[in-house]
Amino acid sequence: MIIIKIGGGQTIDLDNIIIDLKELKEPYIIVHGGNYVFDNLIKELGIKKKLLTSVDGQTSRYTDQEMIDTMLMSYAGYMNKTIVTKCQQSGINAVGLTGLDGKLVRGKKHKAILTVEHGKKKVIRDDMTGTVEEINVNLLKTLIKNSYVPVITPPVLSFENEIINVDGDKIALYIARELKADTLLFLIEAEGMLKDVNDSKSVIPIIKKTEIEEYLMYAKGRMKKKLLVSKWALENKIERIIISDGRTNQPITNALHNKKGTLIQ
Amino acid sequence: MIIIKIGGGQTIDLDNIIIDLKELKEPYIIVHGGNYVFDNLIKELGIKKKLLTSVDGQTSRYTDQEMIDTMLMSYAGYMNKTIVTKCQQSGINAVGLTGLDGKLVRGKKHKAILTVEHGKKKVIRDDMTGTVEEINVNLLKTLIKNSYVPVITPPVLSFENEIINVDGDKIALYIARELKADTLLFLIEAEGMLKDVNDSKSVIPIIKKTEIEEYLMYAKGRMKKKLLVSKWALENKIERIIISDGRTNQPITNALHNKKGTLIQ
Repeated sequence: MIIIKIGGGQTIDLDNIIIDLKELKEPYIIVHGGNYVFDNLIKELGIKKKLLTSVDGQTSRYTDQEMIDTMLMSYAGYMNKTIVTKCQQSGINAVGLTGLDGKLVRGKKHKAILTVEHGKKKVIRDDMTGTVEEINVNLLKTLIKNSYVPVITPPVLSFENEIINVDGDKIALYIARELKADTLLFLIEAEGMLKDVNDSKSVIPIIKKTEIEEYLMYAKGRMKKKLLVSKWALENKIERIIISDGRTNQPITNALHNKKGTLIQ
Repeated sequence: MIIIKIGGGQTIDLDNIIIDLKELKEPYIIVHGGNYVFDNLIKELGIKKKLLTSVDGQTSRYTDQEMIDTMLMSYAGYMNKTIVTKCQQSGINAVGLTGLDGKLVRGKKHKAILTVEHGKKKVIRDDMTGTVEEINVNLLKTLIKNSYVPVITPPVLSFENEIINVDGDKIALYIARELKADTLLFLIEAEGMLKDVNDSKSVIPIIKKTEIEEYLMYAKGRMKKKLLVSKWALENKIERIIISDGRTNQPITNALHNKKGTLIQ
């Protein structure tokens, strides 16, 4: 079992990824993002992104009901069904789901976030984000047993039955853990994990489990997040994590057979 | 088995419908529209509705790729997942699907439509609409057997694997036929089938199979369409069709137990 997380960036080549999926002989599940489409829709609708600044100076997106509605439209509506349709066109019998459907992914909503606004501390309680906690394995197994390929996207359902946004990478990680997948593949907008973010030739080919802590000291931003997820994945008995390029002609074959990208094991 | 078609109008009371669903003892499937949300989104995005005029003077919506994308956002994204979440909040384990997912609903795309533009005849071949033809009964049965409530919306998949729009009432009709449902319930923005569209007290309580042809002679617009669907439903051994008000406190109880609306049998 392979869990494939497709990034939501503009240059990700969905067509090539989906055509290449046909080469896979083992069962797989797709998890995907939708950031580029989301950002575009927000702009077109004239919605202003609101940011939260935490007490240690970090900024994050403030997710209110308007943002959730826009997520439903871009992630669950446009992106999910576009991927499902491309799969159908490629002979893959995909079924698209959010974490809301059949309680597929449940999360814990962040109860209160301490932020700083105009120099004053403020507690935000209505930010609709959270952490992934539970996967409805039965629903996934039922679909797979009946030869469907699940295509999964945020948002997910909180334990209080609210719609919350969570990190798509974590959805992929939790599904991989619960279904005892051997491989977790991230298709991103880069050649792999880079030593130097400005040098696309500086791909790190292999990171061993024992080396992750060292890499974590230097990694920043998205790559740090990917490394952390990979670390957790290895700790949860997923054999290998591959971070590879989602913009090539054969993204799946390159990652699984041509040793392109970064292998973490 | 009851198939419940929830209309996509602004005044349809989703909250009351979904709370009232809990009273149902027999299995059911929800089919829904999303017209109001779709029209709103089109306006907000500044998309102009394009109309086709057929040779006999009838106008219909021209559905191009932009319209399909907006349908995905409004019907499959916002409306479907909002209904699924309200169901979850009401203790109903709903799974939302379009006709694209698992080839749930397949349709035949209209090959060519003869239209009139500025007085000249013109053949339109890229209108992404069609007719409902096939239902993937196995997917629905698998979900129901595992205690999920399917919540279904257009668009659907053409036999050439394109995304096409079809009439939601027809999806409900075909599902009812294939699953041998006894009841097909339409929740609309009116008290039922009205003798006089301007008099909400003129509800026709019962229409017998033998009387449909007579009513068809006088019915117009949406009501004519509902009558035609009802006629086909009876011909396909669905015992009763109820057309009732989706704006009341107990829309399901009113339709099934309080004899509100129009019963066709």
